[in-house]
Amino acid sequence: MIIKRLAIIGVGLIGGSLARALKAEGMVDEIIGVGHDAAELDLALDLGVIDRSETSPARAACGADMIVLATPVGSMPLVFEAITPSLSRDVVVTDVGSVKEVLITAARSALGAHFPRYVPGHPIAGAEQSGVRASRPDLFTGRRAVLTPVADTEPAAVEQVTRLWQTVGATVSTLDPRQHDEILALTSHLPHLLAFSAVGLLGDHDDGHLPEGASLLDFAGTGFCDFTRIAASDPAMWRDICLNNPRALIQVIAAYRDRLDILSRALAEGDQERLFEIFARAQRLRANYPDCADRS
Amino acid sequence: MIIKRLAIIGVGLIGGSLARALKAEGMVDEIIGVGHDAAELDLALDLGVIDRSETSPARAACGADMIVLATPVGSMPLVFEAITPSLSRDVVVTDVGSVKEVLITAARSALGAHFPRYVPGHPIAGAEQSGVRASRPDLFTGRRAVLTPVADTEPAAVEQVTRLWQTVGATVSTLDPRQHDEILALTSHLPHLLAFSAVGLLGDHDDGHLPEGASLLDFAGTGFCDFTRIAASDPAMWRDICLNNPRALIQVIAAYRDRLDILSRALAEGDQERLFEIFARAQRLRANYPDCADRS
Repeated sequence: MIIKRLAIIGVGLIGGSLARALKAEGMVDEIIGVGHDAAELDLALDLGVIDRSETSPARAACGADMIVLATPVGSMPLVFEAITPSLSRDVVVTDVGSVKEVLITAARSALGAHFPRYVPGHPIAGAEQSGVRASRPDLFTGRRAVLTPVADTEPAAVEQVTRLWQTVGATVSTLDPRQHDEILALTSHLPHLLAFSAVGLLGDHDDGHLPEGASLLDFAGTGFCDFTRIAASDPAMWRDICLNNPRALIQVIAAYRDRLDILSRALAEGDQERLFEIFARAQRLRANYPDCADRS
Repeated sequence: MIIKRLAIIGVGLIGGSLARALKAEGMVDEIIGVGHDAAELDLALDLGVIDRSETSPARAACGADMIVLATPVGSMPLVFEAITPSLSRDVVVTDVGSVKEVLITAARSALGAHFPRYVPGHPIAGAEQSGVRASRPDLFTGRRAVLTPVADTEPAAVEQVTRLWQTVGATVSTLDPRQHDEILALTSHLPHLLAFSAVGLLGDHDDGHLPEGASLLDFAGTGFCDFTRIAASDPAMWRDICLNNPRALIQVIAAYRDRLDILSRALAEGDQERLFEIFARAQRLRANYPDCADRS
């Protein structure tokens, strides 16, 4: 499969890495990058990540045979609306958003007759870095890309997007959209909230009583750096993701709070067995994360 | 300063690394390692980490001019009691425990007249690995070592322990014991509880509806691996640490829960500004952790 003209709306870490990987594989003739930050677009051109730049999604959509939405999730509904009038008949539209149910609803309403050729997608890759400068062709190698087609999604469109992600080294899985949002709430959205909150709590601490020149962080181990690394992520991006998955997220926050209550009670009662059991189970589970072992 | 005979009670990651570093600096004539696991002690001998092994803390204390307690925190009170009868008159005793108030109370009660020559200590170094095999001479290089002497601690003893940690590359700070426990609850003990809890929550999820052969972790990014790395830590060690710092820990858990409540409410109300403000502040704070930048 060769894509003649690919439009990537949003040339940041994900959009830029996809462009680089597809070029490296010779899978695409021309990549048009869309963004509203002229400097970032120029940089993408200079780096050879894209072949042509556009500021209008509608213009970039003209004549494209595949369009990938890689903007922050919050602006994707507007992008669906913007591109619809200029879509070619056979174009396949996909996205890389971290939430799927709300985007499917937005796409269905905006794309109209084109909706069956929209394939909701989400490559599970990323980093706390952002921007095209951080993009790299191997970002998706060995990672999972999730597609969440619905009943009226055309199988041929799913097939094309599957090949897109396989070409850049990802393993493709299909999930129900709601299941995707619930799983990601647990594995990604909640952890970000927890890390942001832990850093925020430290920020509230009064450093006035510390030794001259010292800060709280001088008394944190390397473990704290790892634990809070995701709190360096882009706040606007995470606001959008969280606000577009509130139901699942409120539910996992509640379940998590229950766990903290159990720990708090065990501490108050000096319940050794209970604490050991909770910690040992987590330690055992964590040791069995094969993917993480490679990355630790 | 040369230590003629140093007894290290507990030759794991911390005790072993201290031994290696002191040997590398030529600061000690003889190191006696104490443990109850014969295989670990033999390994420490084979690796050249210690010069002689003992299973009895009391025997190891005979004739030692410095004694370092590096066992899990939960057994340190028993070690103080065990060594007291065989302490030399001028011996300096110190420890590496992650909590300080309870250990000072235990030491005061066990050591009696020797108490002024006990210097409570805590090198902020460690890893999710444990055991002498993971020990290395540079573990303390550039790290912070905290001493929490009390009113009746002899300045000369503090001076000796300060030089011990400086020799192995650490920067020494002095904190009030309660302040130490409150700070570490925030920077270390709470994060461990949070990571254990996040992994536990994932463990409760029913994988039955996932695609054949997939597990929840296939849908987690590298960020999740970093975030949960500390959940691979030794559960018995963390049970002991947490149970010996319950007051401060229960307090920070409550403060943390309040933050989760605020996030949950903001999500329910779709409060964009609030979420952005919380995330942006945390992101800014995290970006200013200079020590973490080196390690990311």
